[in-house]
Amino acid sequence: MADIDSRLDKAQAPQVSLDSIGVTTGPIRGSRKVHIASPTGSGIRVAMREIDLDPHSGEPSVRVYDTSGPYTDPNAKIDIAAGLPELRAAWIRSRGDVEEVTQREVRPEDNGQLGPDRSGGVPAFPNVKKQVLRAKPGQNVSQMHYARRGIVTPEMEYVATRENLGRERLAEYVRDGQDWGASIPDYVTPEFVRDEVARGRAIIPSNINHPESEPMAIGRNFLVKINANIGNSAVASDVASEVDKMVWSIRWGADTVMDLSTGRNIHDTREWIIRNSPVPIGTVPIYQALEKVGGIAEELSWEIFRDTLIEQAEQGVDYFTIHAGVRLPYVPLAAKRMTGIVSRGGSIMAKWCLAHHKESFLYERFDEITEIMKAYDIAYSLGDGLRPGSIADANDEAQFAELYTLGELTKRAWEQDVQVMIEGPGHVPMHKIKENMDKQLEACGEAPFYTLGPLTTDIAPGYDHITSGIGAAMIGWYGTAMLCYVTPKEHLGLPDRDDVKVGVVTYKLAAHAADLAKGHPAAKVRDDALSKARFEFRWRDQFNLSLDPDTAEQYHDQTLPAEGAKSAHFCSMCGPKFCSMKISQEVRDFAKLQNQDSAGFIAAEEAEKGMAEMSQVYEDTGRELYMGAGGREHD
Amino acid sequence: MADIDSRLDKAQAPQVSLDSIGVTTGPIRGSRKVHIASPTGSGIRVAMREIDLDPHSGEPSVRVYDTSGPYTDPNAKIDIAAGLPELRAAWIRSRGDVEEVTQREVRPEDNGQLGPDRSGGVPAFPNVKKQVLRAKPGQNVSQMHYARRGIVTPEMEYVATRENLGRERLAEYVRDGQDWGASIPDYVTPEFVRDEVARGRAIIPSNINHPESEPMAIGRNFLVKINANIGNSAVASDVASEVDKMVWSIRWGADTVMDLSTGRNIHDTREWIIRNSPVPIGTVPIYQALEKVGGIAEELSWEIFRDTLIEQAEQGVDYFTIHAGVRLPYVPLAAKRMTGIVSRGGSIMAKWCLAHHKESFLYERFDEITEIMKAYDIAYSLGDGLRPGSIADANDEAQFAELYTLGELTKRAWEQDVQVMIEGPGHVPMHKIKENMDKQLEACGEAPFYTLGPLTTDIAPGYDHITSGIGAAMIGWYGTAMLCYVTPKEHLGLPDRDDVKVGVVTYKLAAHAADLAKGHPAAKVRDDALSKARFEFRWRDQFNLSLDPDTAEQYHDQTLPAEGAKSAHFCSMCGPKFCSMKISQEVRDFAKLQNQDSAGFIAAEEAEKGMAEMSQVYEDTGRELYMGAGGREHD
Repeated sequence: MADIDSRLDKAQAPQVSLDSIGVTTGPIRGSRKVHIASPTGSGIRVAMREIDLDPHSGEPSVRVYDTSGPYTDPNAKIDIAAGLPELRAAWIRSRGDVEEVTQREVRPEDNGQLGPDRSGGVPAFPNVKKQVLRAKPGQNVSQMHYARRGIVTPEMEYVATRENLGRERLAEYVRDGQDWGASIPDYVTPEFVRDEVARGRAIIPSNINHPESEPMAIGRNFLVKINANIGNSAVASDVASEVDKMVWSIRWGADTVMDLSTGRNIHDTREWIIRNSPVPIGTVPIYQALEKVGGIAEELSWEIFRDTLIEQAEQGVDYFTIHAGVRLPYVPLAAKRMTGIVSRGGSIMAKWCLAHHKESFLYERFDEITEIMKAYDIAYSLGDGLRPGSIADANDEAQFAELYTLGELTKRAWEQDVQVMIEGPGHVPMHKIKENMDKQLEACGEAPFYTLGPLTTDIAPGYDHITSGIGAAMIGWYGTAMLCYVTPKEHLGLPDRDDVKVGVVTYKLAAHAADLAKGHPAAKVRDDALSKARFEFRWRDQFNLSLDPDTAEQYHDQTLPAEGAKSAHFCSMCGPKFCSMKISQEVRDFAKLQNQDSAGFIAAEEAEKGMAEMSQVYEDTGRELYMGAGGREHD
Repeated sequence: MADIDSRLDKAQAPQVSLDSIGVTTGPIRGSRKVHIASPTGSGIRVAMREIDLDPHSGEPSVRVYDTSGPYTDPNAKIDIAAGLPELRAAWIRSRGDVEEVTQREVRPEDNGQLGPDRSGGVPAFPNVKKQVLRAKPGQNVSQMHYARRGIVTPEMEYVATRENLGRERLAEYVRDGQDWGASIPDYVTPEFVRDEVARGRAIIPSNINHPESEPMAIGRNFLVKINANIGNSAVASDVASEVDKMVWSIRWGADTVMDLSTGRNIHDTREWIIRNSPVPIGTVPIYQALEKVGGIAEELSWEIFRDTLIEQAEQGVDYFTIHAGVRLPYVPLAAKRMTGIVSRGGSIMAKWCLAHHKESFLYERFDEITEIMKAYDIAYSLGDGLRPGSIADANDEAQFAELYTLGELTKRAWEQDVQVMIEGPGHVPMHKIKENMDKQLEACGEAPFYTLGPLTTDIAPGYDHITSGIGAAMIGWYGTAMLCYVTPKEHLGLPDRDDVKVGVVTYKLAAHAADLAKGHPAAKVRDDALSKARFEFRWRDQFNLSLDPDTAEQYHDQTLPAEGAKSAHFCSMCGPKFCSMKISQEVRDFAKLQNQDSAGFIAAEEAEKGMAEMSQVYEDTGRELYMGAGGREHD
């Protein structure tokens, strides 16, 4: 920390002490943490969140997927300096295929001492394990490897229970969706999970050195997942706010988190994040490798990169973005573009290839990288270094040339039973989105697709969570397994805490819209519960069932702050007299009296009969109930 | 104003005096108002907004569609109490088919004296015209009527120039889109506009008593439009804030505005809005009619409704939402629903039908309504009173039964040459959106579709501008001509100024994403200009080209406030060393030297040749330019 001397650093990054690392804990309002036992009787208990509804409503609680880990459990003791409990430790060791090795010694360059300190100073994580795990020689500890040998792991069982969420109500639901060729089961069994992982259609990122993680699956036959990016950069952020952002992002629904830190103290920042993360952590190892050579891409080498992989593997990173598809012959294709190469990793490798006029060492050494991956069960996230950076460059030759190479690499990784997902764009107008999905499925043998948005227009900086949320929902519907969030600050600045939340909630709603459209069983449970609460003016239930109860209530209270308004049978949009929900209830009551509840379409002519009689019934029942009419929405 | 006595009114609605009605004026930053002469030499000049780019860039200015009217023209004198200049007055009178009549006298019930005053008090508009226009007996003044007689009106000519925006650069662009059967021309001629209006595929809402409006077209072969809703309700808002919201919404891009006021002072509030609006104004006349009968739906009558139509026609309302498709036999279909009837107008009519057990008077008197519409050139916006109010109710029997009735009514309106558009949902999961568009086109003979979102999930109150922005972009792509905005406050409260802006910008980006995907000529001009500015680190140009320059700059400055950072060749996301845009420029420079600019796909094998040579070129050119690499976005 001797060299914190740049003007920017001093001005913007406060000194950080251990004490200042605080995170948000406690339940999300209106809900409580539950642990659901796996039906196999194995003793595995899966964390979920239960939203209890107004007891007068007679409606059952709604159970929702919970990414937030122990932080929302009032019974959990949170100690950031100690890290989370090791849920998977016994599972990992009981398989008998790992051994303890002494952790590679942390070197000064791991924390980037070649450049100025931009992190504001990071204390080392106090609870670092000196002995780490690695596969025994000749062993492969990947979930895919187990799956292909017919073994159902506890991780797979955990995933099955987790994904089955809400399906106990399945009988209420008729499957309704367009799944574009996916194979979504009515009920997820551990065997189904095993089969999906064995085929490569799903991954369970689960580094044996990250036993704190709660197993989750990424694959198009499971719920659509979202990723949140955090990480310090050269000009802003510090470790306290990065740990806080990680916890904050999983509170609102991030299924995985990528630590994209650049600059200094990368190693220590990552240790804090992993030890405290119940979700899989992804990284882009080339960033750190580049720091180790002082930021000069040409000086990167296989040896430095390999060493970085080991360093991060031992810390517990669950998936690595590897830009092995940026091959030398594709680089000139990017020259024709409006916006060239917009992927950091892609541009680093392009520069290396050009400088040396050699094929990428990531491509050439791919099988050696795979050897490392399988010794820790790290999943590949094959990076799309040539993804388009603008509407103008979408679906071009450079992008698809790389995609087909990623398909080739997928098969090579699968030869060693290593889990793979494929990264995708970026910036794509709506009419070109489906082609991305179709080509990815074809080129990559149904390996899970993991896209960044895509943004559907470039003209709205400041609103790119929305321009990209549109594309994300669509490509999620078409089959993308995980959506990487975009925050309102995209293209403009580094996201703060509020931006992280807006990004996560936006992507959560996009992922859910995709699940609904795919006809995912039970996806509708929450929509229906919320709609019913809306119809019945159960305001608190509406807030609690929403993705962001705090914001929903706050918006409501801006117009009608009185406590009584939360039980009022109206809202500020239409006021007490003008409410269509109310009259709909009258229509329903009336129809029941007429036994027309399932009468279906009545021709106008038939309806003429008995009008006088019906009118009398109305007079007798509904008329006095409510003097006034109107509607909830616009007209 | 004697009976302002309810607690809510006193607490929330301040007394309003004329002086307190202020609006935002002045240019949107980085741009200036221009007036483009119609190429016909008729003297018609169309207002547009021109964004000038950094003179050092050599890039041409970008001209964008401008809905903001004189408020953004520094040369215009704005006087809210006087109203806007009457752009169309001479055009209307020169056709020789209108006569002046004395305005129907304003009655106490027009301002809702039957209920408590909820508006905070509204002064009458000082500049009310006592003489208003009406078609001479036997005449039809609708744009459709002229169009069908082969007449190209100045309104059509204005629209042609307005829609041609940017197409002077057309030669640069290859058409690229999926238009789902639309017929979008390369260049819009006044004759094309006439033909679209004659066929009923487009409307130009233009009440002869709203000469202040700047003509615009709604139709799927034109740019996708957006509507913003404003209006006071029973518990909030006042006239000053409604006029301010109108001006504010058109500043950010609302193409039309609906005044959905309920409660008191409806008449006077509307007068203030119309006299100051350069965009077409829509209303739902049944709201005011209901106020006239004290909010008791059963007491509505054709006579009161008809009188309300005349009242609003004389004020200058450009389109009326008429829920004539809510027929008696369809009402019981809504009883089976999760959320019944969510349209205010729909529920009012349903209640009336049930109470009387008669067919809707709107349906029975439809041809008489049409007689009124054609005497003022008011367009129908046929209301979807039975639209779904939840994901569960999407695309059901009630909804489509009504849609086919709207199709029948469309043809009846067209028999009298009256312009029609069709309102659509609402709440629809993604996989059911296209069916809405397809059925609407089929049922309604390609009359323009005008949808509310649709929301693609119900679980995100507080973010329904986004859940619906997704659906809006998609249905806009499929062919919807105008998208009704949804604000973050939807389902929770009445939107304030900030919500209006977020709603408008969200829908503007959705509409633009739709234009891009349809392959609208020149839609890409702005995306490309912004992408290029981004690639070249012209920060100010990026801000100025965005839909919301103020927010874009503010977000940028949160991380890098220094003035110098706006000319910096980096941003806060990656910092000065880690920038892919920079290295892309190097790749490009390098490729140029190698004449590989259009080399296309080079097989890896071929590329092996000459690597040593290429490496030398790189050493000679790029290497020293930039020490470091990296990327703009996530990895």
